Amino acid sequence: MVNLISRRGLTTMASIQKANKIICIGRNYADHIAELSSARPKQPFFFQKPTSSILLPGQGPVIRPRGVNLHYEVELALIIGKQVKDLDAADEKDALDAVESYALSIDMTARNAQNEAKKKGLPWDISKGFDTFLPLSPLISKSAIPDPHKIELYLTVNGETRQNDSTELMLFRIPRILSDISKVMTLEAGDIVLTGTPKGVGPVVPGDIMRAGIKVDGKELEEAKIEVG
Amino acid sequence: MVNLISRRGLTTMASIQKANKIICIGRNYADHIAELSSARPKQPFFFQKPTSSILLPGQGPVIRPRGVNLHYEVELALIIGKQVKDLDAADEKDALDAVESYALSIDMTARNAQNEAKKKGLPWDISKGFDTFLPLSPLISKSAIPDPHKIELYLTVNGETRQNDSTELMLFRIPRILSDISKVMTLEAGDIVLTGTPKGVGPVVPGDIMRAGIKVDGKELEEAKIEVG
Ligand SMILES: [Mg+2]
Ligand SMILES: [Mg+2]
Ligand SMILES: [Mg+2]
Repeated sequence: MVNLISRRGLTTMASIQKANKIICIGRNYADHIAELSSARPKQPFFFQKPTSSILLPGQGPVIRPRGVNLHYEVELALIIGKQVKDLDAADEKDALDAVESYALSIDMTARNAQNEAKKKGLPWDISKGFDTFLPLSPLISKSAIPDPHKIELYLTVNGETRQNDSTELMLFRIPRILSDISKVMTLEAGDIVLTGTPKGVGPVVPGDIMRAGIKVDGKELEEAKIEVG
Repeated sequence: MVNLISRRGLTTMASIQKANKIICIGRNYADHIAELSSARPKQPFFFQKPTSSILLPGQGPVIRPRGVNLHYEVELALIIGKQVKDLDAADEKDALDAVESYALSIDMTARNAQNEAKKKGLPWDISKGFDTFLPLSPLISKSAIPDPHKIELYLTVNGETRQNDSTELMLFRIPRILSDISKVMTLEAGDIVLTGTPKGVGPVVPGDIMRAGIKVDGKELEEAKIEVG
């Protein structure tokens, strides 16, 4: 695995592993909902990944648990910078002020376990929560992403493009997402929020190489790159 | 609300709010499964509560969100003392060595939101994760609970006993629970594991007073008491 970040970057990222909670939005891109034959949500719904699932750059490959149909989901991650509660969905500035920086993330999912949980009405936590199930890029400064609703996320497997869409396609935008979460759970500095995945999710097996990144105005963001086995 | 713990106790408990994750076992007592008309699990399943849901002694009442059918579930909580992974379910000593101390907890649940999530195959996180949804007792030293599978948990509402059962009735005992979790997620020092609730869960409304505690050999454990509005 290529070590994509400087020593200074690694130090900064170490603080991420002290995150209190990781909240992930489900079904936030219409074409992804269609590809999984899921119902379109009337409001954002969310689930948690444990901090023990974080895989920082240089920490090795994603481990596929035995019997698991392992899927990638590339997602823009928000790193929360301060404690917020009851955010107003209409106040875009307030919401974006709560975001300290960004990261790219891959919400690795045990799809068969998730499908079984859905069918039985059981929690999703196991299917989302194995160790190494959250590869993260280095931190991305806010200045590098002037408009988080206007960037391109992509993911390739062994060089083939599998996901490549604009965050413009989000069903619920960041202020609405943060508002809904913060009306349930107080968000705290260091918390991480995943904003959902565009279409194109699919399986990977051991040995596959996933590369993911962000383009801003068609230009690759170097600090957003993930390369993971 | 009565402040049940000493200043020294509060200091110790403050470290709890830095817990990384809180993992809760569902349906671990047969009579509780029957009362919710749920299916009996073939293996333990679990979900997370966010650390932001922790309510320490003296931090005020449980807040009922608007429109929520709020249920109590009294549970024995394990405070993990060291990093463990892939624990062997047959090795009782190894599992209990990973437990540093205990606490009593109330797994507050938005039952209507949980029922809707089950029906729709959606995550349970919102129904379990509101702020104040995890009242905890002060920490209980391991020496106070010689056998965690042989204590009585009780909960009263406005002085009426609602839950009162022995942890002997757990379907999956602590070594099996910790083994199953640690095969998915590395457990870390400070993590909290809730072991499921016995029968008798039910609703509370603002103004109700919940008291919960633990009896060991019929004797009340002073440090295990919770009293919360
Ligand atoms: Mg996702
Ligand atoms: Mg923490
Ligand atoms: Mg419970």
